[in-house]
Amino acid sequence: MIVSALLTSVGINTALCVLFFTLYSILRKQPSNYKVYIPRLLAEGTSKRRSIFILERLIPSTSWVAKAWRLSEEELLAVSGLDGVVFMRTITFSLKIFTFAGIIGMLVLLPVNCWGHQLKDIDVADFVNNSLDVFTISNVNSGSRWLWVHFSAVYVVTGFICMLLFYEYKYISSRRISYFYSSKPQPHHFTILVRSIPTSSSSSISDSVESFFNELYPSTYLSHVVVRRTSKIRSLLHEAKTLYKRVTQLRSDPTQKKYKHGGLFGLFGQKNNIIEQYERKLEDIEENLRLEQTEASLAGEETRAAFVLFKSRLSAATAFHLQQSVNPTHWITELAPEPRDVYWPFFSESFMRRWISKLVVVVASTLFTMLFLIPVIVVQGLTNLSQLEVLFPFLTSILTIKFVSQIVTGYLPSLILQLFLKLVPPAMEFLSSIQGYISHSDIEISASNKVLWFTIWNVFFATVFSGSFLSTVNIFLEPKNIPGKLAVAVPAQASFFITYVVTQGWTSVSSELFLVFPFIMSLITKPFSRSDDEFEVPSIPYHRDLPRVLFFGLLGITYFFLAPLILPFLLAYFCLAYIIYRNQFINVYAPKYETAGKFWPIVHNSMIFSLVLMHIIAVGIFALKKLSLASTLILPLPVLTLLFNEYCRKRFL
Amino acid sequence: MIVSALLTSVGINTALCVLFFTLYSILRKQPSNYKVYIPRLLAEGTSKRRSIFILERLIPSTSWVAKAWRLSEEELLAVSGLDGVVFMRTITFSLKIFTFAGIIGMLVLLPVNCWGHQLKDIDVADFVNNSLDVFTISNVNSGSRWLWVHFSAVYVVTGFICMLLFYEYKYISSRRISYFYSSKPQPHHFTILVRSIPTSSSSSISDSVESFFNELYPSTYLSHVVVRRTSKIRSLLHEAKTLYKRVTQLRSDPTQKKYKHGGLFGLFGQKNNIIEQYERKLEDIEENLRLEQTEASLAGEETRAAFVLFKSRLSAATAFHLQQSVNPTHWITELAPEPRDVYWPFFSESFMRRWISKLVVVVASTLFTMLFLIPVIVVQGLTNLSQLEVLFPFLTSILTIKFVSQIVTGYLPSLILQLFLKLVPPAMEFLSSIQGYISHSDIEISASNKVLWFTIWNVFFATVFSGSFLSTVNIFLEPKNIPGKLAVAVPAQASFFITYVVTQGWTSVSSELFLVFPFIMSLITKPFSRSDDEFEVPSIPYHRDLPRVLFFGLLGITYFFLAPLILPFLLAYFCLAYIIYRNQFINVYAPKYETAGKFWPIVHNSMIFSLVLMHIIAVGIFALKKLSLASTLILPLPVLTLLFNEYCRKRFL
Repeated sequence: MIVSALLTSVGINTALCVLFFTLYSILRKQPSNYKVYIPRLLAEGTSKRRSIFILERLIPSTSWVAKAWRLSEEELLAVSGLDGVVFMRTITFSLKIFTFAGIIGMLVLLPVNCWGHQLKDIDVADFVNNSLDVFTISNVNSGSRWLWVHFSAVYVVTGFICMLLFYEYKYISSRRISYFYSSKPQPHHFTILVRSIPTSSSSSISDSVESFFNELYPSTYLSHVVVRRTSKIRSLLHEAKTLYKRVTQLRSDPTQKKYKHGGLFGLFGQKNNIIEQYERKLEDIEENLRLEQTEASLAGEETRAAFVLFKSRLSAATAFHLQQSVNPTHWITELAPEPRDVYWPFFSESFMRRWISKLVVVVASTLFTMLFLIPVIVVQGLTNLSQLEVLFPFLTSILTIKFVSQIVTGYLPSLILQLFLKLVPPAMEFLSSIQGYISHSDIEISASNKVLWFTIWNVFFATVFSGSFLSTVNIFLEPKNIPGKLAVAVPAQASFFITYVVTQGWTSVSSELFLVFPFIMSLITKPFSRSDDEFEVPSIPYHRDLPRVLFFGLLGITYFFLAPLILPFLLAYFCLAYIIYRNQFINVYAPKYETAGKFWPIVHNSMIFSLVLMHIIAVGIFALKKLSLASTLILPLPVLTLLFNEYCRKRFL
Repeated sequence: MIVSALLTSVGINTALCVLFFTLYSILRKQPSNYKVYIPRLLAEGTSKRRSIFILERLIPSTSWVAKAWRLSEEELLAVSGLDGVVFMRTITFSLKIFTFAGIIGMLVLLPVNCWGHQLKDIDVADFVNNSLDVFTISNVNSGSRWLWVHFSAVYVVTGFICMLLFYEYKYISSRRISYFYSSKPQPHHFTILVRSIPTSSSSSISDSVESFFNELYPSTYLSHVVVRRTSKIRSLLHEAKTLYKRVTQLRSDPTQKKYKHGGLFGLFGQKNNIIEQYERKLEDIEENLRLEQTEASLAGEETRAAFVLFKSRLSAATAFHLQQSVNPTHWITELAPEPRDVYWPFFSESFMRRWISKLVVVVASTLFTMLFLIPVIVVQGLTNLSQLEVLFPFLTSILTIKFVSQIVTGYLPSLILQLFLKLVPPAMEFLSSIQGYISHSDIEISASNKVLWFTIWNVFFATVFSGSFLSTVNIFLEPKNIPGKLAVAVPAQASFFITYVVTQGWTSVSSELFLVFPFIMSLITKPFSRSDDEFEVPSIPYHRDLPRVLFFGLLGITYFFLAPLILPFLLAYFCLAYIIYRNQFINVYAPKYETAGKFWPIVHNSMIFSLVLMHIIAVGIFALKKLSLASTLILPLPVLTLLFNEYCRKRFL
């Protein structure tokens, strides 16, 4: 790739970003789009729907940028909870490290790279036709002493990142503690969840819980609630709710339905009949509900789980930390999740079944990660031009136009890949949800991890080794050769990842601002929805956005000393992300639950992994460049980094 | 190796065992050896020293075998604690699995192996000249269907061992629980040890402990004892003790010392002078001791550790399980060890220093394990005949005799290796002792693990790959090739390990009975020691004996389907060990502490490792024998075994 191509790509994507920003500035002011762009404010009632047409609404403005910029951390904590703060700190953390690495990279490493002439000399006269490789470490002469500059940069940046990681972790754990200190006593603080309660034929679950905890914690045990199977009740309740909505709708809206039915059957009073019919049905449901409720209160519907309440937070914590039973697979205690965070399906499962489902999910998600690219390639192969013409004969005339066919052949494979990739976060969330967790937050944390590893494998390693699944796996089965293979393959993909940052990174974050998908959905559903329908304020899907941000961090850390040219583009990405996500936290997302910073370990681990990966590449690069002393001297660095990680785990849990 | 050679070796070692047994039967009845062979009974006063000479004492008897045989588990528990029971159950467990595997091996696998003719046909007429390889799996024809017999045997034996492991773990954990139920309340049950107490300039350690626990556990906190630096006091006490011994010795023994000194200096009353001198010294020491004690009670000598006492066992357990401080590296709680089990040196270390010393020890013991053979080979190279002649010129005449030179060249290298190996358990114990543990039992458990891995690496893998350190490490850096390499190398060493069991196994266990080293030591020290000296009852060095037993288990499990001929010799070894260790528990060893079965996980993990190693070898063997279907079908087995292990870890903790 040459410089001019990169500049073109940067130009196009900058233009796209500006377009998105402008469109957003205008569209967000239209009352019809309030539900999409400021649902949070709408729900709080801060923003009234103004139906009066004002010219100002059509002029793009930057006031929202200023507003997002001015947001303080305390305000962010108030609106989005500690999880939002952690997410934003991930971005500011990345900004800090890439500003530091960027200064070193652009002022020191880049000149050194250009100075070399392993590949070819830099052509200052015809600058734009220089290959991008001229700016990478590949251009430094083999065995050159200048490589010690890169060596020092690796050490300095690793040290800087580790120092920052430590202080960041310290800060977040102090926030976590102050969160626990400041939060008011909530019922779930006094509650633990007990699962795998052993059944006995003589007494019911409720009785055995009562006697067990009365015996063990006579002074602090308060009461308990056995979890019951209520899926029937819940479906009845749901049915009743929709029916009720229907009835009120019919009653309040005298025109629509009456004429529709009246027109159809030609009978007057049809509407009243329908209402009566519905009301009768509702009564039936009420009757059923009562019946079910009494049935559910019987012992037969009890599951082997119960919420046990204590008189103090300390005694709940004590009961959680101590092993209750001689057999550790019985009476398993967990901290009760927040009420809004509870995920019910796995309450009744036994220890064994939860363990097995966890194993199955781990295997399934590993296979999904490993084999993901195979169906993508198959579909890409199926949907070539001639196939399309067979499937959609009416398109033939359009597809024969050269420009259209070029676009289709050029963009279709990448479009298919993108569509498949969009499916990954929901798929991983689904896999996590059947893993046996009892809270939505645990599911999302687990899904974040899965998506992160998925991205690292399928975007980083699959691109770098650009081979089949088996050949990539083979490389990892020969650990001795990994540094060498990485050292050859990773720098070769430098220009790809630079453009990846520009295209994928910038557009993904602008489309996050523009909320493309919800916007299109609102356009489609607008004719069918009523203005006073209830609507849900969305919560930010951490399992989609956090891995993405972390993956760009990984790219920056691994490439900063190979191809420092990636850093300015990354910095631009993180600046955009900084403004946009702050804006979204203010306007769009409301927290669904509070994990109090449990997402940070994912960030920390991802950074540590990136550092070690970078060190492994450095070992290989220096060996390749015939500077074996430097290659050997890098070796303590991953060891020290892992020790640092181990220390952090002990220090912050 | 041919059959006759094996038979010779078996003959020699059987003769040696019989000799040891006979000698033991006689020597143990000599009152002068009571201290060596029945110190335990002596200490208990069960056995009186009889000085009368009886003829019976010179006739070997087998009564001790019958006594050892009749010992019930309850009696064993009473004399040796749960650790002794666990140790014996390790041996009975091995007996069970190798009886089962032996039946399959000798009745099914051995005929199949002999039936094949990959190497050569078995020569029934000239049986003793058959190579031992005829009895191994190497003799089965490549691609033969008979290999499915081995395949089934691998599955059946793995299943049997896992089942047995499960029930054994269950039994031992039930014993552990009943031990805790039955033991009387001891002070250490109510105590936790708190370490890394943060220092503050304003208050002493004692005050901060007091206020900290009074605030956190107002109702259950009882009191505390801060650990103080008392090394000076201890050395003074030791000095006083020896001086006191001297004085009493001089007073009670009017002849010896008086004449000695009187003869030397020609002065009467010298003895009294000496006694007076000693007594004055003792008074000085007493003075010093008082001084030191008052000094130690000052705050300056406080370490950052304290024993904290609670009013109930539950509250002590609660305080142990809960994290005390916001910073998890402060106020670290541990269960207090038994008083007799406490190991003091690491009480005052900070969290960071203990962590670092642990890391250093892990690295040191890994390096020690990996590089152990290098100095051995160097020493073996240095001590050849000509070197010996140079070092000890007076030996030249003897060394030139052909017979002597043969013995020296034949046995010297193996003698040197044995001497070096004898150093391993103490060396590993030393390494564990500087790892930061606070109890002797933890040190011994850790040392057992280290010695076990040492043995597996330096005896199993070093023999199997019989190459240099680097080539062995290289094999493990290419995980893909491990099964293939093992499949070639392991069966090739079958005859070596069969003779290893006969020579090393049988002699080690007989020398355990005969207590060679203590016996020689007692012979040497007898002229200098007095009959009524205090003597210590030894405790069994688990870190020396447990890894040895487990290593023979590993040999049996890995070789049972390759060379079933190893099994009868292993069974003989375990039968010997069964009788001999029971006898030693009755007569020799007294428990120094009680871990209540904490050694069992080592046994369990070692068995699981052996099984997985066996499966990896099986994968390689079946691939080598061109039965790739069997090779593939073995693959689920290690996975299932590891899952089983994981389940056991969760089920039994």
